[in-house]
Amino acid sequence: MSWNTLQQNRDARLQRARAALGNSLDGKSLPAVRIADLLHAVVECGDRVCLEGNNQKQADFLGHALANLDAARVNNLHMLQSVLALPEHLDVFERGVASKLDFSFSGPQAARVARLASAGKLNIGAIHTYLELFSRYFIDLPPRVCLIAAEAADRHGNLYTGPNTEDTPAIVEATAFKQGIVIVQVNKVVDTVPRVDVPGDWVDFVVQSPRPYYIEPLFTRDPAQISEIQVLMAMMAIKGIYAEYEVQRLNHGIGFDTAAIELLLPTYAESLGLRGKIGKHWALNPHPALIPAIEAGFVSSVHSFGSELGMEEYIHARPDVFAIGPDGTMRSNRAMCQAAGHYACDMFIGSTLQIDLQGNSSTATAGRISGFGGASNMGADARGRRHASPAWLKAGEQARAGRNTIPRGQKLVVQMVETFREHMQPAFVEKLDAWTLMEQAKMAIPPVMIYGDDVTHILTEEGIANLLLCRTDEEREQAIRGVAGYTPVGLGRDKRMVENLRDRGIITRAEDLGIDKRLATRDLLAARNMKDLVRASGGLYNPPKRFRNW
Amino acid sequence: MSWNTLQQNRDARLQRARAALGNSLDGKSLPAVRIADLLHAVVECGDRVCLEGNNQKQADFLGHALANLDAARVNNLHMLQSVLALPEHLDVFERGVASKLDFSFSGPQAARVARLASAGKLNIGAIHTYLELFSRYFIDLPPRVCLIAAEAADRHGNLYTGPNTEDTPAIVEATAFKQGIVIVQVNKVVDTVPRVDVPGDWVDFVVQSPRPYYIEPLFTRDPAQISEIQVLMAMMAIKGIYAEYEVQRLNHGIGFDTAAIELLLPTYAESLGLRGKIGKHWALNPHPALIPAIEAGFVSSVHSFGSELGMEEYIHARPDVFAIGPDGTMRSNRAMCQAAGHYACDMFIGSTLQIDLQGNSSTATAGRISGFGGASNMGADARGRRHASPAWLKAGEQARAGRNTIPRGQKLVVQMVETFREHMQPAFVEKLDAWTLMEQAKMAIPPVMIYGDDVTHILTEEGIANLLLCRTDEEREQAIRGVAGYTPVGLGRDKRMVENLRDRGIITRAEDLGIDKRLATRDLLAARNMKDLVRASGGLYNPPKRFRNW
Repeated sequence: MSWNTLQQNRDARLQRARAALGNSLDGKSLPAVRIADLLHAVVECGDRVCLEGNNQKQADFLGHALANLDAARVNNLHMLQSVLALPEHLDVFERGVASKLDFSFSGPQAARVARLASAGKLNIGAIHTYLELFSRYFIDLPPRVCLIAAEAADRHGNLYTGPNTEDTPAIVEATAFKQGIVIVQVNKVVDTVPRVDVPGDWVDFVVQSPRPYYIEPLFTRDPAQISEIQVLMAMMAIKGIYAEYEVQRLNHGIGFDTAAIELLLPTYAESLGLRGKIGKHWALNPHPALIPAIEAGFVSSVHSFGSELGMEEYIHARPDVFAIGPDGTMRSNRAMCQAAGHYACDMFIGSTLQIDLQGNSSTATAGRISGFGGASNMGADARGRRHASPAWLKAGEQARAGRNTIPRGQKLVVQMVETFREHMQPAFVEKLDAWTLMEQAKMAIPPVMIYGDDVTHILTEEGIANLLLCRTDEEREQAIRGVAGYTPVGLGRDKRMVENLRDRGIITRAEDLGIDKRLATRDLLAARNMKDLVRASGGLYNPPKRFRNW
Repeated sequence: MSWNTLQQNRDARLQRARAALGNSLDGKSLPAVRIADLLHAVVECGDRVCLEGNNQKQADFLGHALANLDAARVNNLHMLQSVLALPEHLDVFERGVASKLDFSFSGPQAARVARLASAGKLNIGAIHTYLELFSRYFIDLPPRVCLIAAEAADRHGNLYTGPNTEDTPAIVEATAFKQGIVIVQVNKVVDTVPRVDVPGDWVDFVVQSPRPYYIEPLFTRDPAQISEIQVLMAMMAIKGIYAEYEVQRLNHGIGFDTAAIELLLPTYAESLGLRGKIGKHWALNPHPALIPAIEAGFVSSVHSFGSELGMEEYIHARPDVFAIGPDGTMRSNRAMCQAAGHYACDMFIGSTLQIDLQGNSSTATAGRISGFGGASNMGADARGRRHASPAWLKAGEQARAGRNTIPRGQKLVVQMVETFREHMQPAFVEKLDAWTLMEQAKMAIPPVMIYGDDVTHILTEEGIANLLLCRTDEEREQAIRGVAGYTPVGLGRDKRMVENLRDRGIITRAEDLGIDKRLATRDLLAARNMKDLVRASGGLYNPPKRFRNW
């Protein structure tokens, strides 16, 4: 019996590569024009191929090259990807180069994923969260070839990823140590990298891409678009949840709802005397909306999944707050930050598209297979967690009061939605669209982003429903109806029971919190537009062009 | 406002080190005899200091040096440690150098931890699982100084950890990118390391230790000590759980119970036709007891938290199975393997000391503050997990059948215990000793290893209780009593109800599974002693001396 098949196969691939590239291979480096030759030489039919691409940086040059391979020579690839964001990510299936997919998120391409799946051109293994997908790379889905992106490489293959380290270390480690092939596109090849993010002996091939890798400023929200309803909801969040539980370690989802909270920390939260009491430690990308809170001394530290375009100089000038390398730029790490978001944070707060009567929430809609990203991981009670904090203990006490169970803490998981989203679609529904999608996409179970039994609070413009305090399924349903406003679900409430829940503090309205709704204006925002954010940063924040109208 | 205090403080420490060490500092290297000078120069009172030490490798030279510092100069350190295993780990508190502790496990030193805590010399922050503690290093507990261990370093500080990579990358990353000081003890300084496990520019000081770092072969179990009751329990596990749920991806705890299962895979499981159907992918250290199953082709892959002494040559010769670097030796990674154990495995199975009537289990006993290690993390339902597998779906269906909840999967968490442990202590109790310990150690909540609502099966010599199928607290209690044998808890059963649970398949006896108890002999073990394991390995396994009587 041979125990060395992976290594032998690796050697054969490397030999084919050397034969195909000949003199154009300079150590580990090859010219960009020879990328197809390299891929034809080292990729085998049926391979598991991990193409790096997250909601931020993309190994777009390599992805494009892969999609344009000769499908007669290379086909039936099993793609492993954090995010499907670019057209090439689907072209690879359209053209028959790949046929199977395991992934985490496909926001921009969700409709095309669904179309290709129902046309039989794309067989979905499963949808994951990021850390879950990385975990499988080490167990049952090790990549045979990985295609990654870095800022720079030296001639030994040492990689500098700069602030957008993101998924790279986890992908490369899983591939390299199972005798896979590691191919990296870099923005430039240099004599000495500013720091080593991935050691050169884990890397096989380096190609300088004709263009810098694509990067999406996904976490930038223009404060000009924040509504006064969002300001009101942010006030309720701060007074009714952050202050109530003394939340010091947390993660925010993406969106205007949480951006509003970030922008109210130095104004509204400051006026409540909450500086130093809430929002000190963050598992969060460098959100520009957090700048005023950082400047006001609200924030002690931020550890990031990835970076954010335009924030480089600001981060560099605030090394006490961010994780900075010896070269002075940030190092992010999606795997460790997801672990930290799950285990070292007391709260996740984010938005969703739909919530049902049990509190299950989903961003899935019919005809769009979009996935979960990181929300399911951070928006789940960390049942393996054991260290206590005031927020965690209080949530746990509320969940277990009067019950005959052993005491433990619980993570705060807050879903923050306006009762109607765009086009007057109700955010509250009797049945999630996820059920329809399950049937369409032949999934084993409906794709739920956050399960109802993990959600502790639902916050709308009508109030906060504290699900921890509900003792029966009926109470939970009425608590949800009681903040669902004029949606059909909200109108279907049992008014007496809802009033009873309010008396018991399970439902809290703005007025119950002593919030004067007249103060809920955009004047409370620490920055009202992009220019304000730049100003707050002392000119260090440099927003991408599309966010600038000056 | 200064935003650069960490960097300035780091620079001051480095300057003090250069001044103290003068010419004896050669680049990053210093002689072992100067270690106290270095530590006095770079460690400040009140620092958070992470001392590497797990249940396997120990930065023992650095730990010893730290414990012997002048407490008048360096005191009130806040120690961060995965495991407290060596006397030095407590000496540091005894001598007043440190006063606060955040940790994961203290097995061998648990009684002394409790004594020092009650004497007021050791203030416990919290007890964590490994991944949880690493997570906090990135959020609210970044180490100011870390003291780590590696196999070798080159003159640039590039580290080679060899097979025992373990916690090193997570600790160094968290420290180095928050401008902390990274000090490493190495077994040797070399010109070129066999591979780079940690890049040199993340490392500040290298000291060659007079002795190689201490390492404990914690996962080695001599098959000669496996009892026939353990063989019977292993048969029940294989037929009643592994086969029943088609468990392909899993983690085993430490101990003879699970070692027996490993040794029955090539014999009993093979006879049931289970090769290729169960036990293919493992998140597991290289257990010697797994050798016969590997040789029989049962095992596709093993990813490890750390390595195991004596397994080096065997691992080297089985590169298809283990994660192997370009140098031919394994790379382990505790953080990623814990993530994988949580998110990419369908089952955790392990032993415990005590189980209560709700299924809560704990290894805490009065007067011993021992901690959790990794079991709580892997023995918890991964609520952030979204990908399906047959095992996960079946467990989820059983848990939710007849209930009005949205379908989802669930992790299998099996607690395997004999009804009486050593000295005839019952494993089943009305109330866990954890409650007493909570009061003694002034903890906020009792230290539970695995919560009852995460446990899916309890397996004893009397049978298997499937808690997934229980529908009320009373059923759960009787299911537990029904496998608790002649312990007081077992004798307190409602016999009619237990028979009813058996009729419904909630309790399964060996005979219900068609297991002939007469076959449960040591003859079924694929290896009956250490020599058999060596033989099975083709002479590649080289057991540590204490396990050899030849």
